[in-house]
Amino acid sequence: MRITVHRKAHFNAAHRLYRKDWDDDRNFEVFGKCSNPHYHGHNYELIVSVTGEPNLETGFVMDLKILKELIYDEVEEAFDHKNLNVEVPEFKELIPTAENIAVVIWNKLRTKIQEDHDLEVTLYETPRNFVSYKGE
Amino acid sequence: MRITVHRKAHFNAAHRLYRKDWDDDRNFEVFGKCSNPHYHGHNYELIVSVTGEPNLETGFVMDLKILKELIYDEVEEAFDHKNLNVEVPEFKELIPTAENIAVVIWNKLRTKIQEDHDLEVTLYETPRNFVSYKGE
Amino acid sequence: MRITVHRKAHFNAAHRLYRKDWDDDRNFEVFGKCSNPHYHGHNYELIVSVTGEPNLETGFVMDLKILKELIYDEVEEAFDHKNLNVEVPEFKELIPTAENIAVVIWNKLRTKIQEDHDLEVTLYETPRNFVSYKGE
Amino acid sequence: MRITVHRKAHFNAAHRLYRKDWDDDRNFEVFGKCSNPHYHGHNYELIVSVTGEPNLETGFVMDLKILKELIYDEVEEAFDHKNLNVEVPEFKELIPTAENIAVVIWNKLRTKIQEDHDLEVTLYETPRNFVSYKGE
Amino acid sequence: MRITVHRKAHFNAAHRLYRKDWDDDRNFEVFGKCSNPHYHGHNYELIVSVTGEPNLETGFVMDLKILKELIYDEVEEAFDHKNLNVEVPEFKELIPTAENIAVVIWNKLRTKIQEDHDLEVTLYETPRNFVSYKGE
Amino acid sequence: MRITVHRKAHFNAAHRLYRKDWDDDRNFEVFGKCSNPHYHGHNYELIVSVTGEPNLETGFVMDLKILKELIYDEVEEAFDHKNLNVEVPEFKELIPTAENIAVVIWNKLRTKIQEDHDLEVTLYETPRNFVSYKGE
Repeated sequence: MRITVHRKAHFNAAHRLYRKDWDDDRNFEVFGKCSNPHYHGHNYELIVSVTGEPNLETGFVMDLKILKELIYDEVEEAFDHKNLNVEVPEFKELIPTAENIAVVIWNKLRTKIQEDHDLEVTLYETPRNFVSYKGE
Repeated sequence: MRITVHRKAHFNAAHRLYRKDWDDDRNFEVFGKCSNPHYHGHNYELIVSVTGEPNLETGFVMDLKILKELIYDEVEEAFDHKNLNVEVPEFKELIPTAENIAVVIWNKLRTKIQEDHDLEVTLYETPRNFVSYKGE
Repeated sequence: MRITVHRKAHFNAAHRLYRKDWDDDRNFEVFGKCSNPHYHGHNYELIVSVTGEPNLETGFVMDLKILKELIYDEVEEAFDHKNLNVEVPEFKELIPTAENIAVVIWNKLRTKIQEDHDLEVTLYETPRNFVSYKGE
Repeated sequence: MRITVHRKAHFNAAHRLYRKDWDDDRNFEVFGKCSNPHYHGHNYELIVSVTGEPNLETGFVMDLKILKELIYDEVEEAFDHKNLNVEVPEFKELIPTAENIAVVIWNKLRTKIQEDHDLEVTLYETPRNFVSYKGE
Repeated sequence: MRITVHRKAHFNAAHRLYRKDWDDDRNFEVFGKCSNPHYHGHNYELIVSVTGEPNLETGFVMDLKILKELIYDEVEEAFDHKNLNVEVPEFKELIPTAENIAVVIWNKLRTKIQEDHDLEVTLYETPRNFVSYKGE
Repeated sequence: MRITVHRKAHFNAAHRLYRKDWDDDRNFEVFGKCSNPHYHGHNYELIVSVTGEPNLETGFVMDLKILKELIYDEVEEAFDHKNLNVEVPEFKELIPTAENIAVVIWNKLRTKIQEDHDLEVTLYETPRNFVSYKGE
């Protein structure tokens, strides 16, 4: 019997989509307003989903208090109220698109989640634009 | 051609997470505030998802009026404004974690849904904590 | 120039609507399923609204970090994961209807908010039932 | 590495569920209030999900600005503020149930989305009734 | 002591904005796509707010079960799954704009609500367009 | 007869809360993480509310298509995907707190709205922190 538990969290951050090896015009052509050199920002909403067998003693797949703390330590502490391009090492050479942020979060959490549990990450950049990644 | 239809419902209930064979200290250690002997409660939001071939005559996978009534009879009548630990027989010997409530709901509905239809249940205990189960 | 700042919080609690001086039948007649002697519960959503002049130096009517902590200390610590009837002194002799819970919260916060600021409290018992109170 | 990007859109439309080859009584028996000959309507919410490999240069699975425009051209222009039964050719001989609307949208978008990308469509007819289809 | 209780409800309806004494061109010029002669529709969300003194015995301003039934009888029964222009007598000579629908609802409910209670109606035509009316 | 019409819009922006005449330590003491020199950002949600008499011919207080365009021209064009501190002239000498942003938006819209109409602006910085201003 496999069940999925989901925990929702959020963080606010600034970012900019651009490639250093392209000039401003090409960046604007590809990334539009998102390439603004002065940055813009979002309230990111994050859903972390963990799938596995419930523990027989507790009825928990994973204690959601522990998942909440893990998300706090790995994601909120690292990203909240930050400029993703400037202050978050993972995005020094990686464009902080929603896709890439989701993959970075998945990679950070994957090492901390029990190995036989599946992991999926859904990241809302806005209420209308969101991405999901499950390590496939 | 397989399509999934989803119906959202809700119920309000009190519960407590604890094991009778553990003392209050151990229960508090594992279940935290959720082990409060005086109970606490939630507005549970439920999404029931049924997947199958649409009927050629009606265009319906399953008439959502019938699914709505089924959820009312099997879940809302049984759980709404109830104390899950005290008044719902399924939780006499089973801890009413979100995981276990989702499995109980899935089992109740499974027998009433057409056999060649797949069934998934998603249960929100709070807007930030939720679980899903599809009988695998 | 008067501006209103709003802060949203939440807590989960069990309650029961009944009068000790009425028998179970009369309680059921008036309060319906909400009078269930075994309790039921809700995810209460709370919006606290404070109106006043913004501070000239900071641009803040009231620092929302301080309002967040105040709500935590006065409301969440006192009500979250509690049985309102049994564990919260204010409801020993007062029926914990949404109306009365809102008034109790307003009274607790009023003494901690700057005197020349107006205060309003909105409390959602469910997404469809809610109340508001501004001390008038 | 496969990631899913999701874009949310909406449109308002009138519709009626009925079969021309059934009389009003049989239509009412099967489709209830939804068979009202004078039509009723909905604010449809649509989520389009595209799964594929992110582009190495841009970090995008699919540019969401392009997906937004595609949904505008294929779905909003065709369905918004329309009477689905009367004005949308696809429903001349097809009952505009949520299931069928989702399939029609999926078919329209499928030809415009890169072939090696997977496509899923979720359509909310109301906040409580919704369907999803992924072309299987 | 005056408290406001709010109850949320919803109904789905078709409508069209136009004046019989204007031709189609002028109607389109003023009402745009909303003047479509074939109708379009919405999921209307309604919030009814009643302000008054709580009853000393029950702690209720107004029993929300009674308010729920009143909204059902006066609004949902009359408007849900209807074509407002064709089937609802109040809109035979009145354009069913959100403003006018809100006033019609307010007038219908005003006669059924205790006289010393204030009444306000908020009507969402879409999540982005809504109106409120309090009889002033 | 006075009715309020509301229109919801949104924009994404970066900002930083700080006073140039304070050093970083004092800024951090007062504004906390919001003073981050590298900026952070938000998805701002905006509700603009206009109160007045409905037009006798159209049933509109104010055509919501015109209000939508006005918000687009005055707010979205000016703020969306911008760094409020660096790129928006109104915040050159004014801290972009939610309170101040709301007042700036109100002032911009006030000159464009019919004089005998009342105006209120509600601005969500996050789903839990928001402000409202009506020019009093």
